[in-house]
Amino acid sequence: MLGNFTYCNPTKLFFGKGAISSLTSELQKYGKNVVLIYGGGSIKKNGIYDEVVRCLDAADKNVREIAGVMPNPTRDKMNEGIAVAREHKADLLLAVGGGSVCDYAKAVAVSVNCDEDPWEKYYLRFEEPTCEIVPVGCVLTMVGTGSEMNAGSVITDTATKQKIGHVFADEKVMPRFSVLDPTYTFTLPRYQMVAGIYDIFSHICEQYFSGEDDNTSDYISEGLMRSLLVSSRAAIKDMTDYEARSNIMWTATWALNTLVAKGKTTDWMVHMLGQAVGGYTDATHGMTLSAVSLAYYRHILPYGLKKFARFAVNVWGVDPAGKTDEQVAGEGLAAMESWMRELGLVMNISELGATEDMLEGLADCTRTQTGGYKILSREEIIEIFRESL
Amino acid sequence: MLGNFTYCNPTKLFFGKGAISSLTSELQKYGKNVVLIYGGGSIKKNGIYDEVVRCLDAADKNVREIAGVMPNPTRDKMNEGIAVAREHKADLLLAVGGGSVCDYAKAVAVSVNCDEDPWEKYYLRFEEPTCEIVPVGCVLTMVGTGSEMNAGSVITDTATKQKIGHVFADEKVMPRFSVLDPTYTFTLPRYQMVAGIYDIFSHICEQYFSGEDDNTSDYISEGLMRSLLVSSRAAIKDMTDYEARSNIMWTATWALNTLVAKGKTTDWMVHMLGQAVGGYTDATHGMTLSAVSLAYYRHILPYGLKKFARFAVNVWGVDPAGKTDEQVAGEGLAAMESWMRELGLVMNISELGATEDMLEGLADCTRTQTGGYKILSREEIIEIFRESL
Repeated sequence: MLGNFTYCNPTKLFFGKGAISSLTSELQKYGKNVVLIYGGGSIKKNGIYDEVVRCLDAADKNVREIAGVMPNPTRDKMNEGIAVAREHKADLLLAVGGGSVCDYAKAVAVSVNCDEDPWEKYYLRFEEPTCEIVPVGCVLTMVGTGSEMNAGSVITDTATKQKIGHVFADEKVMPRFSVLDPTYTFTLPRYQMVAGIYDIFSHICEQYFSGEDDNTSDYISEGLMRSLLVSSRAAIKDMTDYEARSNIMWTATWALNTLVAKGKTTDWMVHMLGQAVGGYTDATHGMTLSAVSLAYYRHILPYGLKKFARFAVNVWGVDPAGKTDEQVAGEGLAAMESWMRELGLVMNISELGATEDMLEGLADCTRTQTGGYKILSREEIIEIFRESL
Repeated sequence: MLGNFTYCNPTKLFFGKGAISSLTSELQKYGKNVVLIYGGGSIKKNGIYDEVVRCLDAADKNVREIAGVMPNPTRDKMNEGIAVAREHKADLLLAVGGGSVCDYAKAVAVSVNCDEDPWEKYYLRFEEPTCEIVPVGCVLTMVGTGSEMNAGSVITDTATKQKIGHVFADEKVMPRFSVLDPTYTFTLPRYQMVAGIYDIFSHICEQYFSGEDDNTSDYISEGLMRSLLVSSRAAIKDMTDYEARSNIMWTATWALNTLVAKGKTTDWMVHMLGQAVGGYTDATHGMTLSAVSLAYYRHILPYGLKKFARFAVNVWGVDPAGKTDEQVAGEGLAAMESWMRELGLVMNISELGATEDMLEGLADCTRTQTGGYKILSREEIIEIFRESL
């Protein structure tokens, strides 16, 4: 059954090779002062920076830059960006990069006109913006987070080791537009590509593994997962396979723009576990998820047996004839594990730098969720981290 | 492969039982003059009219009405509506009804400020609006067309028997908001419900049966179709099954709000054949589609064999082991036919009032499409109509 909901995703997407050609005319819709936001500078090597700057020049914008946004954007970096955007009287924040850069731009966007401490207001108290929100645009260079078409933003406080995501309810936090050119992702290292692919898959699982109802959202999720299996297998064979990379990019957007969660409960426990690891080790987000997923899913399988069996049949093509639900579900997770190994994902948290003596601390940083098939106790969380070592 | 595209669907959807409670606050965003548009008056019997009027009163609107919008809205009725909206200086057109009423509101919306003949500009020359578009809101009472979240509008010229749909490119033609309450569809006659279900299914097929590429859109389509098979079978057993009706309503929206066509070619030939029948017989839209579908799909099957085989396996669960593609594809269409009969759909155009002597005329009114697996000749069109008799 679909529960009540509101749906509104107004982000305009320009998709495909050469989609940047729409940027100049899109920029005309905003005021003169643009803050250009990017990460470690790879966009200067692969030419994307030059293309974006050409569009900004053609649109006659007054540009200031915030460079060096890190993979896990920090509270300090956010405060630095807020100061820059205020000083520049930003009419638009243009994020060029992956989910981190886009998340960061949204954090700044809701904070420029905010009188309170944004970390406390948005990431500790989970409040909605009450001030004017600066528009955000995005040129995506890395795929996975779905940040290009949602109102989510993850920020890390390095002092307290807290990595916290807030999905804002207000659609004005979503990017007004995003440029999605699959060829922009071709130069990404293989490690980042597969981490992004698993991030996508995990987003779908988080929304799929919850509830007992029959609802359209789960069928759409199954379609997205089936597409991702085909395109990810093609992409690891040839990282410049446009068909594969374009499908991965489009799947990523729909995996986390609220659609597949509509009208149903969701879990998000893998992200809570993975974010705790990320806060401790600063590891790549997608790899923190892959490293904890199987231990978690095998732990909760008995509580969501029917859904895990359905997952096995509808996503992994397991033949259920003559088998118990337990067998079918187990074969599904085995197929998932084999696909994860095929992709070359990180399969344990030790490889990411986590050690036995961190387990208590990791559990302290893990927020439990209530939408999944089992509400985890502290002991269970520690046990799952231990099995993930 | 996903071809280049732009995606933007800003319609805000209020979904679920009691969703009308959001209408009053939503109405505050628009000016005082509202034109309330509805059909044959069933909304006055089932109480929806009263609920909407209460919201309009609470929002202190100045309301004029256009009643009597017919299932196939005519060019004359459109012109009448334009005159009313001009005289009332409409700030908002509020459509309360099914796809016909919503389509009609959009036709009026793009015409109020248009200096040319809208039938000629929009439906014969397929031009985009160059004038200001009046905002449209929708309260949906019948499910199928997807009109609540797209920029499509079908109008019929009774003089020339032309029933023509225009899908506008400008997202401003889409309703600004739509209220989707599944319980509003409970009082619909069974005939209308199943016609709507087939309309949804046909929308997905039209976008699915085209192209040879691997693309995410087709996987989403398969998910939507699988959901619809489950929910339609539950709905014919119990028309007040909220789980089923809510899933059908949500599937309908996503079947035709541009998503599943993104980056791929599409067909739409079943709609061209069905609309010709509709123009001649004034039959219910969904039934004109069901009456011509199987003859058409069996005719084009050899040209799109791989896709029809995939359809059989992924949507209908046909086991392909040890069978040729032809056998698998044939079993898929047989399963589809059996589901259609289970629903009680009209399976031939004779039942809708079409006769042998109309065949030439029907062919005259059928616009051929170029995106499907076979571009039909006039002889093939006549042959398909003959097989559909």
